[in-house]
Amino acid sequence: MRPTPSIDRGRIEAAATLLDGRVRRTPVVGFGAGFSGHPDVVHKLELLQHTGSFKPRGALHRALTSEVPAAGLIAASGGNHGLAVAWVAAELGVSAEIFVPEVSPAAKVDKTRRLGATVHVTGALYDDARAACVARRAETGALDIHPYDHDDTVAGAGTIGLELDEDVPGLDTVLVSLGGGGLSSGIAAWFAGTDTRVVVVEPETSSCFAAAVAAGAPVEVDVAGVAADSLGARKVGLANWRALHAAGAASVTVADDAIRDAQRRFWAEAQLVVEPGGAAAAAALWAGAYEPRAGERVAVVVCGANCDPATVVT
Amino acid sequence: MRPTPSIDRGRIEAAATLLDGRVRRTPVVGFGAGFSGHPDVVHKLELLQHTGSFKPRGALHRALTSEVPAAGLIAASGGNHGLAVAWVAAELGVSAEIFVPEVSPAAKVDKTRRLGATVHVTGALYDDARAACVARRAETGALDIHPYDHDDTVAGAGTIGLELDEDVPGLDTVLVSLGGGGLSSGIAAWFAGTDTRVVVVEPETSSCFAAAVAAGAPVEVDVAGVAADSLGARKVGLANWRALHAAGAASVTVADDAIRDAQRRFWAEAQLVVEPGGAAAAAALWAGAYEPRAGERVAVVVCGANCDPATVVT
Repeated sequence: MRPTPSIDRGRIEAAATLLDGRVRRTPVVGFGAGFSGHPDVVHKLELLQHTGSFKPRGALHRALTSEVPAAGLIAASGGNHGLAVAWVAAELGVSAEIFVPEVSPAAKVDKTRRLGATVHVTGALYDDARAACVARRAETGALDIHPYDHDDTVAGAGTIGLELDEDVPGLDTVLVSLGGGGLSSGIAAWFAGTDTRVVVVEPETSSCFAAAVAAGAPVEVDVAGVAADSLGARKVGLANWRALHAAGAASVTVADDAIRDAQRRFWAEAQLVVEPGGAAAAAALWAGAYEPRAGERVAVVVCGANCDPATVVT
Repeated sequence: MRPTPSIDRGRIEAAATLLDGRVRRTPVVGFGAGFSGHPDVVHKLELLQHTGSFKPRGALHRALTSEVPAAGLIAASGGNHGLAVAWVAAELGVSAEIFVPEVSPAAKVDKTRRLGATVHVTGALYDDARAACVARRAETGALDIHPYDHDDTVAGAGTIGLELDEDVPGLDTVLVSLGGGGLSSGIAAWFAGTDTRVVVVEPETSSCFAAAVAAGAPVEVDVAGVAADSLGARKVGLANWRALHAAGAASVTVADDAIRDAQRRFWAEAQLVVEPGGAAAAAALWAGAYEPRAGERVAVVVCGANCDPATVVT
């Protein structure tokens, strides 16, 4: 039996109302059949969001629906969520303390510091930074904004599904990458019970959702590879798993080489700098990991930009 | 007395019909008041167009409304127009010969060659490449696609005005950069006789339109500076001047430093790699060269991306 998710359209619509005018309405663009090899593919350019990823939607919604204590905000992150929490803190005029792992690229860490947050680089991967964050939070009492495993964060990310639905009614498929599941579960919650199916794309090197699908529940996996900073959670979040499972989201994986190739194509043919985690969903089309049928209307969520541009130039 | 331009809305609408499905419909995005310092500014992201600039609109429209001889296409360009003509040739299955000056960056020259065109790097600036192109054209009989001074090219670029008008009805002002005037005159032709005013932005170091406004007719100027490869025409085109003058386009100039600063802001705050010529229009807002009044609805055309991303990273 599929679990009942606690995020529904009403919650996502309420989140959209709260976020209106505070986050960017990102555009949906068709780059032409020559770009993706399929004529009916559009791209939601969420990498143009504040701070360069989708993360401000969930983080700001979580902060706006909580009581923010005098100690401010605290978060652990592979990089993009920390950037978003730092941005939220600056928007709300409170302080932020961010824990990132060593795998987080300089592009993200430096940008987070420029937003005024205190940044601690701790441990090899996200889960190590998370442990340090939890310990510190017990001392300060700051509001801990989890990067994905919270209904209010998921509802914030779900506004991307709402916008896609408004801008491109009648989509068959949404391709979206997954780290811990915050983004994909929000979009899946929006489309649950409709004819629009969410396809979760993960790197073969970091595929906790594929493992959860195989096991029937979230399980721990090893994580590595080119997208480890943004997609390298060891286990899909519980709130996220519930929403994805309830919506019947599919799972595909792509090789790291396909992700690098997708980054190069985005730059060469669309003039966009896309980070590995942001390019993974499109890589599923180019690498043939997901093959749309003729006439299938597909949206690809391009969810992050934060990397060194030198890595995407051919 | 203002001259009568030969490009009207009917011609631009016809161009839009011909170009539909062949060029990208680029999005209009608001980045928030924090981005430009003004709440009512939107950006037409024409840098997401095929080849990374607005140029395919005019070049393809010119080719589609002409007889293309067996010798194919020929063009002189600072770089972006040559890229566009190479792309048009590939789309139509004909050959292309492109003349660019030494000031054209490697990012443009290499991309043009990858599209299959024969590229000749000739002379210091655009006008030198133009002279070589005219001489070669006399030998081959290829279709010479001028980068700006032709009504069919202007009508193609004018489709940007049409799209802006559809997507953001009731604009007060469109800020757009000028090299020879192809882009700005097309947009001005669309908005001529309406309440929407076109403001032409040029680098102080390459300002042939400002000189033409002062003289009352196109005159030759010296050109140099950070945007010389894309905005470095020595004289505004005659067809372009007519359309701009008839529409009452205003003229402002910005310093090279302001253009570099705009490039850095586009990357730091919107994750966009924008070349100097593409960033000049936005620079007019940041540098205060153009000050919108309260509530003024402004669109900025971001018209080109082709540069080395390393030059925009802060």
